[in-house]
Amino acid sequence: MHVVNVGDVEFKELEKGDAVGVRVKYLVGEEHGAKNFYLRLYEVDKGGKTPLDRHIYEHEVYIAKGVATLVYEQDGVRKTRVVKEGDTIYIGSNELHQFINIGDDKLVFLCVRGAERIYEKKE
Amino acid sequence: MHVVNVGDVEFKELEKGDAVGVRVKYLVGEEHGAKNFYLRLYEVDKGGKTPLDRHIYEHEVYIAKGVATLVYEQDGVRKTRVVKEGDTIYIGSNELHQFINIGDDKLVFLCVRGAERIYEKKE
Repeated sequence: MHVVNVGDVEFKELEKGDAVGVRVKYLVGEEHGAKNFYLRLYEVDKGGKTPLDRHIYEHEVYIAKGVATLVYEQDGVRKTRVVKEGDTIYIGSNELHQFINIGDDKLVFLCVRGAERIYEKKE
Repeated sequence: MHVVNVGDVEFKELEKGDAVGVRVKYLVGEEHGAKNFYLRLYEVDKGGKTPLDRHIYEHEVYIAKGVATLVYEQDGVRKTRVVKEGDTIYIGSNELHQFINIGDDKLVFLCVRGAERIYEKKE
């Protein structure tokens, strides 16, 4: 078992793709014993955005604060929709996604990601 | 992709083991396309408790509101510790766990659980 308070975990700047103004707290990861999925807290500055991303591992996101445009794809066509505090988002394997903070304050969300290992030799 | 606001998901009473006063919102599950891990929101009444539990799948918990006694085991000895708002808890495979609400208000936490399938034929 591992317990840590979110206030005691440092933010790390996210440097990935076209990310702007994104910081991450790695709350539960491999270093705490987790083998199959990891929990992180993201903070995005006003006007900032997470990288436009697509990967094998799934995401499950819970928006704790703020409002964002979520970029996604449907039948190969790029689309957007607004997501806000209290919204829960499931992003499947290889689904395009990006969160753009369109609010006046910070965007804060919890994000679970699968470990690469669980996608090996699985359908 | 699947998006739902937490306010639009109904609570279901948890009837499991010695659970008392526990309700769950199933935010992301198999029914939304998730294959490997699921996200739920738990609410525990003042004086209530989750079941004393132990299972193959891991948990990752984020306490959104309240304060609880967490029952766990260390080297085969049963122990307790206090956990509170902002605490993140990793519970490994087959680790004993129970949350007892010791606060004056409701205890609310997000909880991720692994799907059984990811524990098949893995170390």
